[in-house]
Amino acid sequence: MTSSPRLINALAVSELLAQDHDVIRVGHTQGDATVDIHDKASIEVLFAKIDALVVATGNVAFNSVTQMSDEGWQVGLNSKLMGQINLTRAAIPYLNEKGSITLTSGILSDESINWGTSASTINGAVEHFVKAAACELPKGLRINVVSPTLLEESVPKYGVFFPGFVPVPGATVAQAYKKSVQGVQTGQIFKVFG
Amino acid sequence: MTSSPRLINALAVSELLAQDHDVIRVGHTQGDATVDIHDKASIEVLFAKIDALVVATGNVAFNSVTQMSDEGWQVGLNSKLMGQINLTRAAIPYLNEKGSITLTSGILSDESINWGTSASTINGAVEHFVKAAACELPKGLRINVVSPTLLEESVPKYGVFFPGFVPVPGATVAQAYKKSVQGVQTGQIFKVFG
Repeated sequence: MTSSPRLINALAVSELLAQDHDVIRVGHTQGDATVDIHDKASIEVLFAKIDALVVATGNVAFNSVTQMSDEGWQVGLNSKLMGQINLTRAAIPYLNEKGSITLTSGILSDESINWGTSASTINGAVEHFVKAAACELPKGLRINVVSPTLLEESVPKYGVFFPGFVPVPGATVAQAYKKSVQGVQTGQIFKVFG
Repeated sequence: MTSSPRLINALAVSELLAQDHDVIRVGHTQGDATVDIHDKASIEVLFAKIDALVVATGNVAFNSVTQMSDEGWQVGLNSKLMGQINLTRAAIPYLNEKGSITLTSGILSDESINWGTSASTINGAVEHFVKAAACELPKGLRINVVSPTLLEESVPKYGVFFPGFVPVPGATVAQAYKKSVQGVQTGQIFKVFG
């Protein structure tokens, strides 16, 4: 199972942020622009001068720790971890003074589920990247990470993997991205758990 | 700068554990056996039936978040993160019932230093891997991670990068590995901070 349940989330985020900002929606196959986050060249042509980068995508593979393949591990490393880190690195020169970066982890950095070892590892790595990068970003840039639990919109597809996890609406998660973009904090993990 | 300051640590660990156990010392170029942790085939021929795996090595690159190269990021991902995860995966079939696995992270998962973003990211990933893997390891296996601060023995080489960090003796860090190997806990981060 390879998942990107936060694509729904990304839509809620962009709708909320579009109330106050000009939002450039970037997807793998659709949006105002498209990008393959595995491909650095594709990332680097993406940016004009912007005030904020919000990344709410990235895949990880799910399997047991004994059954996960080398390729399964590479999915999370290349997509959700280095995809977000590479977007961050590429965006820095294009972000305006006091701009912001917001990445996405997920509740599996705090809690474990069956088959979730890679997701926990990758989400944790993203959060630690954000905490460390916040200490040395140039131009007064801020960086935070939103850690959502299971989304209500994802329950039909993923709910069975999250027994007892109380889902939250995508619109609630979107508020955390708004807090990161419009607020003053940096190096924070904004947890949206049910 | 690419570092493996914990090689000294590994020596202290093996000396302490050798008081109570038959220790097979495995290094990149020296020891009872040698292994290249980047090379899965090299790892898989390593194990006989054992009671405990202790990993106290793994490289990460140090540089600013704006200057770190793609290759620099891959050092930590391939060596300290996937090197330790691959050793864990390879050891599982060879570990005896109720055996243990002990990995190594480092204080940079909790605190940040200049040039330390990759180290913070990788150390955090190792800790989250351990917490999640502990929930689903077979055969009653335990897994923990030791997070040392700067070692006294590493001060001449690395002290300048850790201003105000109080170093600890390698022998003190070695006790945390002993606690992990001989104790009953699993999924723990044993922090040895000054």
